[in-house]
Amino acid sequence: MVKDVNRAALEQAEKFGGKLEVVPKVAINTREDLSIAYSPGVGAVSSAIAKNPDLVYTMTTKKNTVAIISDGSSVLGLGNIGAKAAMPVMEGKAALFKRFADVDAVPIVLDTQDVDEIVQVIKAIAPTFGGIHLEDISAPRCLEIEQRLIKELDIPVFHDDQHGTAIVVLAGVFNALKLKKLALEDARFVINGAGAAGLAITRKLLYAGAKHVIVCDKVGILSEDQAENLPAHHAAIAKETNQEHRHGTLQDALVGADVFIGVSAPGVLKAEWISSMNDKAVIFAMANPDPEIYPDEALKAGAYIVGTGRSDFPNQINNVLAFPGIFRGALDARSRDITIDMQIAAARGIASLVSDDELAPDHIIPDAFKEGVTEVVAESVRRAAQ
Amino acid sequence: MVKDVNRAALEQAEKFGGKLEVVPKVAINTREDLSIAYSPGVGAVSSAIAKNPDLVYTMTTKKNTVAIISDGSSVLGLGNIGAKAAMPVMEGKAALFKRFADVDAVPIVLDTQDVDEIVQVIKAIAPTFGGIHLEDISAPRCLEIEQRLIKELDIPVFHDDQHGTAIVVLAGVFNALKLKKLALEDARFVINGAGAAGLAITRKLLYAGAKHVIVCDKVGILSEDQAENLPAHHAAIAKETNQEHRHGTLQDALVGADVFIGVSAPGVLKAEWISSMNDKAVIFAMANPDPEIYPDEALKAGAYIVGTGRSDFPNQINNVLAFPGIFRGALDARSRDITIDMQIAAARGIASLVSDDELAPDHIIPDAFKEGVTEVVAESVRRAAQ
Repeated sequence: MVKDVNRAALEQAEKFGGKLEVVPKVAINTREDLSIAYSPGVGAVSSAIAKNPDLVYTMTTKKNTVAIISDGSSVLGLGNIGAKAAMPVMEGKAALFKRFADVDAVPIVLDTQDVDEIVQVIKAIAPTFGGIHLEDISAPRCLEIEQRLIKELDIPVFHDDQHGTAIVVLAGVFNALKLKKLALEDARFVINGAGAAGLAITRKLLYAGAKHVIVCDKVGILSEDQAENLPAHHAAIAKETNQEHRHGTLQDALVGADVFIGVSAPGVLKAEWISSMNDKAVIFAMANPDPEIYPDEALKAGAYIVGTGRSDFPNQINNVLAFPGIFRGALDARSRDITIDMQIAAARGIASLVSDDELAPDHIIPDAFKEGVTEVVAESVRRAAQ
Repeated sequence: MVKDVNRAALEQAEKFGGKLEVVPKVAINTREDLSIAYSPGVGAVSSAIAKNPDLVYTMTTKKNTVAIISDGSSVLGLGNIGAKAAMPVMEGKAALFKRFADVDAVPIVLDTQDVDEIVQVIKAIAPTFGGIHLEDISAPRCLEIEQRLIKELDIPVFHDDQHGTAIVVLAGVFNALKLKKLALEDARFVINGAGAAGLAITRKLLYAGAKHVIVCDKVGILSEDQAENLPAHHAAIAKETNQEHRHGTLQDALVGADVFIGVSAPGVLKAEWISSMNDKAVIFAMANPDPEIYPDEALKAGAYIVGTGRSDFPNQINNVLAFPGIFRGALDARSRDITIDMQIAAARGIASLVSDDELAPDHIIPDAFKEGVTEVVAESVRRAAQ
């Protein structure tokens, strides 16, 4: 089945030579059309914007266009494959932007992996766009690049690998806890994997109100009292989490936990550890393509709810539920940022798309093609932006 | 009439909010579609390109996409209005690319006017594109930017303000001389205006075989023996032209000339000077929107053929005759450059579109909408590339 999909994808790429085209919205069939869409008429539009730069947001493609930018340093599960090989992913994402949210997205891959230069280049091209969607940039570089751009640009900047996954997981957490009848403040979380996504999930959980969060990485539980031995971004998250200063391995962390959230590696969650978790354990196993534990195994070991990144199991954590509506809402609101409040509003919007009637252990996340997803997310984001 | 066009252009910009959209060529309606156009299928395409980077030219939008890049330093007749105000022009150009040559073009405006930074930024984003179309960058900066990019990039780079106009003028020259039955080597040219376009016209005329070319600027005739008083780019062109070392004003230069080519300022060509030119004088008066001399005045003063940049007079020198077909041809040939040979081939292609039956003093240039323009230009360019 994977082989078939791969073959179909290669055939599609060969047939179409890229998934996108750039199409005029205006007719150009006569000399008069030409004089309106181009010279001399276009001069009147340029003059108007020169006088009032704000008009660029209503009179040009900046209004509805997002750049999808990658340096190819961390592409899907393929690693640092570089700019050119990253192109198909950026194109695919651009296609989803148009399909799901009528956002015009332009893939841009960069022939540099230097943090300063990436920031400089994106700042230089930013006047063109209404927003910047960062994609597949390796951690911890992506953290600095995003933070600097958010500070220095007047358009929203959003790194999907950090926040997209985190927002959809958060939606899943909201609905899982609703089923468990457990308050967010009382729930005990273990996040496994302290890369870009793990950190973003942790921070959003904390911001939304979670009190009991432990983050594990390859070295085990991250703890404030061992912060001096950790890289800066891990030391920082250790200070914000694990209030009980627990130590040990992932196995130790799971004792008494309600929710496991894995953004780590295939097979690292052993079935026998689930019995040490609290009753009705919730498992998000999002390593790709092979999860931290397979759903059937987790359920057999006593888990109550299991979500993965895969479309062939229930509860798929699929970024496409988040980023199209988030940018639709941010562009419509002409928001300067995509704040954490807007992101959490998006998560609540996604969670709300599963009605109380539908809500069940194997249905806590809406389907990507469910009617109204983008509208609900965009509306949540627009309201939070105001 | 100009007022109507301006109003229509503003209304169009307000209505559409930009002239372009980015549209998927592939269907995304089912989970299977999603798995082929995006994850996991897209990983197979990325892997294939990672193994063989050459496939980026056949499997991604790089194949058919050109970036239209400006720093907004010299936009139409409006001057240095900056990046945002340049957007409508770049969008218009992109719309023409698709309309006339099925090239997908992406406008990019830059928040910098520093030559080194512009070169650096364009190099960084270049892996995304099959070609770079520079637009509305002021001289002499545009000369250095283009030259450096041509040297350092492996995709074609073309500054339309230099070469687009020059190629169409050259087509006009070929047909005008055919009507005059005068060989290019024997014709005497005066170029007025030593900016980016004037220099490109001069160099292409020389490369095509012209022997008698004088370039004038605001200071008058450029002459090698006064080179030390000139800026470097004027000193260079002075050495390549004016073999007779003539001195004086534009009026002096025109004595005995066959062809006047103005890329200068409104009204600078006096009707009475035309009588000092050779019989059947040819006048290209391309200052915009008001030409160096109006056609009716020039014809009354004895000119044989007059061309302008305007669509409301015969013989419009319209760049749209050149750039779409040139990039179509260069992309199809996967040429690394757009060489001067390819450019002159394009000019010959444009000239050939006026048949011997049609050729007349008021019809030396084909209409922009004439059937087959892009195909003929693209085919000429493809052949020259080989």
